[in-house]
Formats: sequence, C-alpha cells, structure tokens
Amino acid sequence: MSKKNVIVGQSGGPTAVINCSLYGVVSEGLNHPDQIGHVYGMVNGIEGFLAGNYLDFEKALPGEKLKGLTYTPGAYLGSCRFKLPEDLADPVYPEIFKKFEELNIGWFFYIGGNDSMDTVDKLARFAEKTGNDIRVIGVPKTIDNDLVCTDHTPGFGSAAKYVAETVREIILDASVYEKKSVTILEIMGRHAGWLTAASALARRFEGDNPFLIYLPETAFDPEDFLRRVEACFEKNCNVVVCVSEGIHDKNGTFICEYDSTAGTDSFGHKMLAGCGKYLENLVRSRLGIKARSVEFNVSQRCSAAMLSACDQKEAIMAGQFGVQEALKGTTSCMICFDRKTADDGSYSMELSTHHVSEICNKEKAVPAEWITADGTDVTSDFIAYARPLIMGQAEVPHGEDGLPAFVYRK
Amino acid sequence: MSKKNVIVGQSGGPTAVINCSLYGVVSEGLNHPDQIGHVYGMVNGIEGFLAGNYLDFEKALPGEKLKGLTYTPGAYLGSCRFKLPEDLADPVYPEIFKKFEELNIGWFFYIGGNDSMDTVDKLARFAEKTGNDIRVIGVPKTIDNDLVCTDHTPGFGSAAKYVAETVREIILDASVYEKKSVTILEIMGRHAGWLTAASALARRFEGDNPFLIYLPETAFDPEDFLRRVEACFEKNCNVVVCVSEGIHDKNGTFICEYDSTAGTDSFGHKMLAGCGKYLENLVRSRLGIKARSVEFNVSQRCSAAMLSACDQKEAIMAGQFGVQEALKGTTSCMICFDRKTADDGSYSMELSTHHVSEICNKEKAVPAEWITADGTDVTSDFIAYARPLIMGQAEVPHGEDGLPAFVYRK
Repeated sequence: MSKKNVIVGQSGGPTAVINCSLYGVVSEGLNHPDQIGHVYGMVNGIEGFLAGNYLDFEKALPGEKLKGLTYTPGAYLGSCRFKLPEDLADPVYPEIFKKFEELNIGWFFYIGGNDSMDTVDKLARFAEKTGNDIRVIGVPKTIDNDLVCTDHTPGFGSAAKYVAETVREIILDASVYEKKSVTILEIMGRHAGWLTAASALARRFEGDNPFLIYLPETAFDPEDFLRRVEACFEKNCNVVVCVSEGIHDKNGTFICEYDSTAGTDSFGHKMLAGCGKYLENLVRSRLGIKARSVEFNVSQRCSAAMLSACDQKEAIMAGQFGVQEALKGTTSCMICFDRKTADDGSYSMELSTHHVSEICNKEKAVPAEWITADGTDVTSDFIAYARPLIMGQAEVPHGEDGLPAFVYRK
Repeated sequence: MSKKNVIVGQSGGPTAVINCSLYGVVSEGLNHPDQIGHVYGMVNGIEGFLAGNYLDFEKALPGEKLKGLTYTPGAYLGSCRFKLPEDLADPVYPEIFKKFEELNIGWFFYIGGNDSMDTVDKLARFAEKTGNDIRVIGVPKTIDNDLVCTDHTPGFGSAAKYVAETVREIILDASVYEKKSVTILEIMGRHAGWLTAASALARRFEGDNPFLIYLPETAFDPEDFLRRVEACFEKNCNVVVCVSEGIHDKNGTFICEYDSTAGTDSFGHKMLAGCGKYLENLVRSRLGIKARSVEFNVSQRCSAAMLSACDQKEAIMAGQFGVQEALKGTTSCMICFDRKTADDGSYSMELSTHHVSEICNKEKAVPAEWITADGTDVTSDFIAYARPLIMGQAEVPHGEDGLPAFVYRK
C-alpha cells in the first residue's frame, strides 16, 4: 500500500486553543511515517483550498517550531466561513475531491464548530456516495461550548478562564469607590449561555459578585432586572451583572435590538452587540445610579494570557486522537469528550467519536436544571461542571520584545 | 523622641500595581520599628479617613499575607475622587490634621495621579503654614503616564504591556479571514496618548499592524483617516487601527462627540467613550468594508494577567523610597523616576524627589518629536523609551479555584 497524505484545515472563529488541536493533528500525523507521507494544511479552510492554497507542515514549521502552535491563539492556517451547498450533486464536490486526489490525500481533518461540522458531514457523505475511501474527521473547537454529543469543547475552558479571571479583576476594579455603581459585563454567546455562566466561577464565596447572571436560555425582563439591581444594593454598593450578548425578552426580541439595528453574518446569524450598553443606559436613566458597561469582545477567544492548561492539553489530545482514529479507518465522525470521575473523585476525561451527522447544525444550551428558577444565576452543578476546565495556567514563552513569541504563517 | 506612626492612602483610578507601591510603603515602614510605631492605611483615601475609616496593616495583612499586595490589582485600601478646597483656611484642613494628631501620625503617603498630587500639595502647604512637622509624600501611579518631572509612572508599564499584548493577539484574531476588514481599537487616554502609543510595541516588524496609531496630541481628520485606511489595503487585507479615546479634530471637538453626548466626572473631566464605535460605523458606511471596534476598557488598568515585572519592581521601589526619604525628613514632594543607561547600554532607573507643587495639576503629553509628521504613528524613539517598561512577566499565584489568589480588605 503506497503512503497517503494528511490534510487539515481550520474553520470558523478562532479560539485560544484551535492551534493546539492543529498541533495534535500535525504532530500525530508526523508520528506515523510508515503510513503517512506529508501533512498538509489548507490555508483559509476549504475556501482557500479550493483556490489552491495549502502548505506542507514540515516546511512551514520544521522541528521544534511546531510546538509554537500550542500557545499561539488565532488560526495559524487562517479560517473561512464557507457553507458548502446542500446538493451533493453540486460541481464543487468533485472539484474538492479532485484536489484531494492530486495531493494523494487519505485523511482529511477539519477543526471547527457546528458550521464546520456541516462541511465535514457533507464531504463525508460525498465520499461515501462516490465510494471514495478518504477518512473525514471533525475536530471540535468553539468557545461557545454548544456542540452536542460531547461533554465540552476545546476552546471553552480557556474562554471560560478568561471570563472568570477578567470578571474577578473587574469586580476588584469596581469595588474601589464607596459609591453606588452598577457594572454590566457583556459576554459572548448568541444562543447558548455557557460562557456567561462561567462568570459565576469568579465568585470567592457564596453571595459574592457577580450578583446577577443572565443567559439567553431564559427570557429577560428589563423591569424585573431593575428591581433586582436595586435589591442588590442591600448586599453591596458595587453591583456587577453579567449578561450574554444574546439575551432576549419573552417575545424573543433581543435586548440589544431595543435601541439598535442588528446585521447578519454570512451564515445568516444575527450579529449582536450592545445589550450591555443598553442596560447601562437603562440603569442610569431609570435608577439614577452610576453605571458602566464592558463588552468582553474578541479577547475572550484570542487571549493567550489566560490559557487553561486543561483546555490546552485536551485540545492537543483531540487532534492526536483524531489521527489515531482515522488511521484505524474511522470516518464521518467528530472527536468527542466523555467526562469520567477518577478513583479519587477528581475530574478525568476520555475521548470517543460520534457520527458527525448527529452533531452538525445543532446547538447545546445550558440545561434548565443548571439555571436557577428565577433565571438570574447558575447552580452549583454548573460550577462543578465548569471548574475543572479552567484549571492550570499554560506557559507562554515571551520574546526579547517582552511579548508572547507566537508562531506565524507569514 | 517618641515613635510616630505612618499613614498611607490610595486615590484616583486603580492600576495593576498601585498595590505594589502600597506594599513598598507598608513593608518599608515595618522595616523601621525603631522609628515607626504603626503603619495605618486610610480606607477610601482622604474622604474615607475624614469619615474615620482606617486600618492597621499588621492586623489587616499580617506576616506573609502582605506580599499578596504585589500581585493584586485594584486599590486594596479603596479609593476616592475628592478634591480638597483651594482655600487653606477651610475647616477641613484642621479637621484632617486633628485626626493625624489623634493617630500620632508623623508621615503621610498618598499614592495617586495628578489629582491626588493636588491633595498632597495642599496638605503639605497646610502643614508648612501651621508649623506641623508631619512629612507629606506623594507616590506616583497612573496608567496615563502623564505626570511631569518623572521619566514614567508606575502603572504605565503594566497597562502598556496589556495594550501591546492584547493588540498583538487581536491582530492575530483579525488576520484569520482573507477578506478586507478594519479593526478599530480604542485605548484609554483623555489628553495624553502614551498608552495608545504603546500599541506600536505590538509590531513584530517594521510596517506590521497596527498600521495607523492616532494620539490626542495631534488633530484627527476623519477624511484623511478614511483615505489612509484605503491605502493600507495595499499592504494587507486586515487593517488594525489604534486610537486614543480622546482624539479630537482641529477645532478641539472630540470624535466621540460627533454622534454622542458626553458627561463629566466629579473633577470636571469630560467622560469620553465611543470614538472607536464612531469610526467603525464611519468605515462601514463610507468605505463599505467590514469593520468592528473593540474598547479596551477597564482591563487596561486592572488586569494582573499581563503585569510587567519591571513595573511591579519599580512600583514597590517607589513606595520604599518614599518611606526612606520621609525618614530623612523630606516632605512636600513626589517620588520620581530618572532614567539611566547602565554600562552595558541597558535600561536602568534611579529614584529622586521633586517638589509636588511642580507636578500637581499638570499633564505631560507625548513629545511632538516622538510622533510622526503625519500624526499617524510614533517614532523609534518612543519604542526605545517604552520597551524596557513592559519587560518581564510577574508571577501571580493561583488558588485551588484556578484563578488568581488576590488579597482583599473585606
């Protein structure tokens, strides 16, 4: 049997550890020189690949340089937001597989979220339909933690650590003056509130700030919110509130749309921004209290300064395991995490695969039982779930310029 | 001679290292048990002290706990924004000094920026006028780096490191798609552009992003800005622009006021926000290009994750040196930094004192010769000035909850 080659791509929004999974795929691919010839990378995902853009990892990141991926946020290979047509008879499919054939590809890995798993699913179905034995594997990543069939997703732990640590720092910052103040923190999450829920990890004791946490899983009532904020002042003069960007009222209208217009991205998702600013203005005008809002923005997904060591390790394992499974012949699947409890009661995690068709285009919300009945907090079960995922500080080498020494494609 | 006591307060906005200077004052105070009895802390600055709030550090942070201040952002003692009356005949002055006398205070230290140095100046003048031999010393802190008579201020180095590192990460994040995009980063700085200038430290090579850097020291022209953004696309499809919150046009109108109304804080400063959002909308509507903006917000001044080891060390030294000077009898001064060049050409720093009346209520802007003639960048002289200040990563101990183990007053 002549040796075949591996190709890997990245797709969707970057995370702090999407390059860790890339490192996992590439390093494990290079570990099997008996079976695998080259390990190629698609530049800018399937869209860039269609335009002929790819690289050979042994040339791009030779030797020890490859390790730089484990602490470099963003997407080393570049990304795309490109939805393949629903109709498998579309000429783009044979075009992609012709390119696979030209590069003698035997295994294809795609690192991404649920939109990217849609690409994995379609390519796997096309391969099956045409009798092509190329192995097609999805490696999960998303800070949103909203993929089904997996306990959690690589990228969430580091984003959750960023949120928890930054919320803890801002609580400190908010507490310096003895004057009533409300600080609204707007955290990423369109439909799933996992990341906003992680703000509860910032608390040092029960009843600590953030006093109110609002997820998109429950309807938001501005009048009830104002009453609760006022009640919080009995506990502390500095009130910190965490909200998902995607909070909405009982009619489904996004709070950020109360005073602004929202666009849509190329997948048709509503682009949200501004519920924090809206609530800041609401508190100031209705309660007459000093208010400010902070939008956490892209640092949630691209900061290496608060990389979770657990997340980093698991993201690498997901990539490695993907290659091991593909070499066994597994295809049409996504790598999944199964939570186990070690003998000493501590957290442990095992890897498995699920058919990608069960996963793509689905979203996993925070379970209702992990949200308090009044919809303003998460339960201790959520804390127990999320805490292990933010443990450990990953080391990031710094250069002579005093800044992280990331690796770059160009 | 009977032993007298030290009291120290913090004032103005918090920084990542204002507690390092507090550590310097307290630890050095406790180092002189022959001369100093107790080391007290004013809770919520001079305003809280007037209300009777203070603590004894040997009780509040005994033994090794004191060291926790060196990596805890915010203001451990709490802060205030309280301007003492201009008229030294005002009854508040004898009221303060009566409280000093009750606590047998011999030395008073106030850690803050130029508004706080105004407090130091007035109290020092009142002491002089009334023949009170209490020593009154200001210890500088401000992320804005705008105090005169000192090479730089504690707090700037860590904020500059936060800006440089976060800009570097966002450049990575912005570079993943091969589609034209403009990312506007809004950085703190009302009148002085030091912190925005620090974004230039993020560049890995000459001509790297951020392509445009706008400080409040030069007038901003929106039309010229749009022309320059368009020209940047010849270099790269992802353009990152850094702007100070306080940029204004040639008539002095703040850009953020172009489409919003601005309030004023208790010192009469205009409260600015939103020039980034304004420019984002301008780029999108006028150039039809995908644009986003990120307001760096309070994490610039309260993040411990990117603490500069140089800044941390110097902030501690400033507090220690203040006590040493006060014990020698120095008064009415602020601790200043003088830059020296070591024999091997490397950066070194010496401490000195300047009369606080030369410093309070003044602002040091970025020198015109460190800004390029077209007003869209800083020169290599600025880089050489700022680079040493962001060097080194301070260690922050983490607790069993996976988050920084800060110390708290309550």
